[in-house]
Amino acid sequence: MTSLRINPDRLLDRLRTFNRIGALPGGGNCRLALSDADRDGRDLLVTWMRELGLAVTIDAIGNIIGVRAGREDTPPVMFGSHVDTVGTGGRYDGLYGVLAGLEACEALHDAGVTTRRPLALAAWTNEEGSRFSPYALGSLVYVGGMPLGDAYEIKGIDGARVGNELTRIGYLGDATPGWLKPHAYVELHIEQGPVLEDEGTVVGAVEGIPGMAWLELTIEGRSSHAGATPMHLRRDALLVASEIAVFVRNLANNIGGSQRGTVGRIEVAPNLVNVVAERAVMTVDLRNMDDNVLWLSENRLQTFMAELEQREKVRITVRELTRFAATPFAPEIIALVEGTAGALGHSSRRLPSGAGHDAQMLARICPSGMIFVPSIGGLSHNVKEDTKPEHLAAGADVLLNVVAKLAD
Amino acid sequence: MTSLRINPDRLLDRLRTFNRIGALPGGGNCRLALSDADRDGRDLLVTWMRELGLAVTIDAIGNIIGVRAGREDTPPVMFGSHVDTVGTGGRYDGLYGVLAGLEACEALHDAGVTTRRPLALAAWTNEEGSRFSPYALGSLVYVGGMPLGDAYEIKGIDGARVGNELTRIGYLGDATPGWLKPHAYVELHIEQGPVLEDEGTVVGAVEGIPGMAWLELTIEGRSSHAGATPMHLRRDALLVASEIAVFVRNLANNIGGSQRGTVGRIEVAPNLVNVVAERAVMTVDLRNMDDNVLWLSENRLQTFMAELEQREKVRITVRELTRFAATPFAPEIIALVEGTAGALGHSSRRLPSGAGHDAQMLARICPSGMIFVPSIGGLSHNVKEDTKPEHLAAGADVLLNVVAKLAD
Repeated sequence: MTSLRINPDRLLDRLRTFNRIGALPGGGNCRLALSDADRDGRDLLVTWMRELGLAVTIDAIGNIIGVRAGREDTPPVMFGSHVDTVGTGGRYDGLYGVLAGLEACEALHDAGVTTRRPLALAAWTNEEGSRFSPYALGSLVYVGGMPLGDAYEIKGIDGARVGNELTRIGYLGDATPGWLKPHAYVELHIEQGPVLEDEGTVVGAVEGIPGMAWLELTIEGRSSHAGATPMHLRRDALLVASEIAVFVRNLANNIGGSQRGTVGRIEVAPNLVNVVAERAVMTVDLRNMDDNVLWLSENRLQTFMAELEQREKVRITVRELTRFAATPFAPEIIALVEGTAGALGHSSRRLPSGAGHDAQMLARICPSGMIFVPSIGGLSHNVKEDTKPEHLAAGADVLLNVVAKLAD
Repeated sequence: MTSLRINPDRLLDRLRTFNRIGALPGGGNCRLALSDADRDGRDLLVTWMRELGLAVTIDAIGNIIGVRAGREDTPPVMFGSHVDTVGTGGRYDGLYGVLAGLEACEALHDAGVTTRRPLALAAWTNEEGSRFSPYALGSLVYVGGMPLGDAYEIKGIDGARVGNELTRIGYLGDATPGWLKPHAYVELHIEQGPVLEDEGTVVGAVEGIPGMAWLELTIEGRSSHAGATPMHLRRDALLVASEIAVFVRNLANNIGGSQRGTVGRIEVAPNLVNVVAERAVMTVDLRNMDDNVLWLSENRLQTFMAELEQREKVRITVRELTRFAATPFAPEIIALVEGTAGALGHSSRRLPSGAGHDAQMLARICPSGMIFVPSIGGLSHNVKEDTKPEHLAAGADVLLNVVAKLAD
C-alpha cells in the first residue's frame, strides 16, 4: 500500500537547480509573480513537465497544469503549489510542493505505475500576493472566486497590470481557468511555523486554514504633561492600547484550542517621553479554525473595549481590515495524510495552517488537504528559511503515496 | 497684613501689550531664547522696569534683574520667571510671573510702601530649553551650576551659539551671574496641569519639583508568523512592552502620593499586522517628590522586568536618559503661600510641580517657593494655553503679599 518512494537526491537536485533562478546574493530567492525571474522559473518547470511526458496546459490567468494520464479518463487527483516568492523569500516556500509533485510523477514512472485516475500537477499564479493583491490569485480565479477581467486590471506595487504582465512573459494561456475539475486536491508545503520542529514531529496533517479577523483600532485620548497630570486625570491612549494587547494575549490563552491573537503594529502620537499619548492606532489579528470561537473572541474584545472607553475616558473606533471564514479541509484527506505518514514510519500530528494557501481556494471545488514538513526555527518569508533534507524526502513520500491512494 | 492689592487691569494690559511681541497668527507666542523676538521682549521689560525706578542689571548670561531699594541694604527678596517661550508657546508661561512681579512693584509704589529688604525682579535666560539645552540655563549659571564658558559654547537647534547670540542681541552684560545673593526666591507661574482647575482651587502652594527618572527600555524578542506561531512559542516584544506600560500605571496608582508613571513613546519592529514583534523600544517617565519612593518604584519595575525576561524569553536592556533628584521647596514659604492665599480669601492646596522651573535652581542658594494658578484644560506649551483673568489677579495678589511679608 505505501511501498512507493521518491528519489530524494533527484528532488534535492531539482530544487537546487531551480533556485538558481532569482537567487539573492546572500541566500534566498526573489521571484515576484509575473516578473522575469518568475517567467524563467515557469519555463524550466514546463520543460521538466514535458520531459516527464505530462500534457501541459496554461490557462488565461497563467496557471500551469501538467496532466499525467490515468487508466480511466475521470476527474484527476490534483496537487501542486506555486513557484513565485516574496521579495526576500526562502528556497522551499511553494517550490517544494511543485517539485515534490514532479518527483512523485517520476517516481511513478520509475515504478511503472499508472494510476486509475489522471494526475494533475499545478503551479498557481501569484500565490504570495507580494506584487499583486490578493494572494492566491491564480487559484482564486481558477475556482471562480474572481472574474478574469477583474484579475487582469489588478495593479501591482510597481504599477504594472496583471493582464499586461501575463502577456509580456508569455503566460496568458488559452484555457479557461477551471477547465479541469479535480477529484481532490493535495498540497505539500513547509510549515512556516515552529510547531513541528518544537515537538520533533516530521509530518503535519493540516486541519484547514483558520478563520481570520484583522481589526485596526484607533484610540483617542488626550495629550497632557507627564509631570503635571495626576494619574486619575489622564486619558492615556497608549495605556489603553497596552491593556488591549495584554487582553488579546490572555484571551487567546484562555479560549485555547487553535485560537491565536496578535497585536503586531502600533503607532502613537505625539510619541514623546514626557507627554501622555493622545492617540494610538493598533492592529489586532485573531484566528481560529472554529468560526464560532473566533466570533466569541471578537465579542469578548468588544466588551473589554467598551469597558475601557468608560474607565479610561477614551474613544475607540474599529475598522475591519480583512476577514475570512475558516476553511476546514476534507476529514478523509486529513486522515489519509495521518495514516500514510504513520505507515511510512513518520511521526505526525494534526495542526491548523498559520498562513493562507492555494489549497484554501481549491477547497471550494473539491475535497482538499495539505501536508506540512518542519521549518527550521519556524522561519518563513525569510532568506534563512530552511528544512532538513530528510524532512523534504519524508514529505514527498507522503505526498506520493497519498496521491497514489486518492487516484486508485 | 494682607491689605495690599495689585491693579488687575494694569497687569492684563501689560500682558496684552507684551504679547504683541512674537505673536503667532493663530494665537500664542514664539519668543525662542535669544531670538530677535526675545530681544524685543527684553527691551520692553527693561524699559518698564526703569519707568518704575528699578535699578536694572544685566549679567553675563543675559539674566535681567531690576532692584527696588529697601529701607535696609540687606539681601533682597527675589521673584520673577522668564519671558522666552517654546516654539508654539502660550501667552502666560513665564511672562505672567515676570509682569506680575512688575505689577507688585508698582502696587507697592501706589501704596507708598518701602519694604525693609530690597526687592529684586528677575527674568532668567532660556528657561524653556527649546532653542538651547539645558532648560533653565540662566538660573543654572546664576546659582553656579554651570561655568559661563561652557554655557557660551552651547549650540542651539539652529546651530547658533549662546555666547554669540547674547552678544548679537545686546544682552551679554557686565555683571557676574550670582552677583546678587537673595534672601529668598518666589516664582509665580501657571500650573501647566489640570489639578487646580479639576478641584476648583485658585492657588497652588508648590511643594517642590519631583525627582525624575527617564528610562529607555529595549525589548528584544523574536519575530514570527502571527498565524503559524502558537501562543506559547512566542517571544513577543510588543506584548512585553504592553505589560510594562500597564505595570507602570498600576505602580503609580499603588505607590500613591505624588508618584507619576508614564509610557509616552514606543517604536516597534517590524510593526506589521501579522508578524509577532521582534523588538520594541519604549520610554518610562517616573516622578516623585520623595526620592526614596521614586527609587522604590524603579526597583519594583526592575523586578517585574526580570520576571518578564524569564516568562516571555525576551531580553530587556535599560538606558538612563535623564535623572535628577527632587527639589523640595522651603516649608516656611509653602506655608506662607498657603496662609496668604487663605487670608486673601482664595482656596488653595499644596501640590508638586509637574514641570521644571527656575525656582528649582534658585532653591540651591536660598529658601525658595512657587505659587501656581489654574491652567484652563491643563493646557501647556500650546497656543491655546489660557488662565482666567480673575485667577491671574488672585495669583499676583498672593505674590505681592508673600513678597511684602518676606521683605518685612
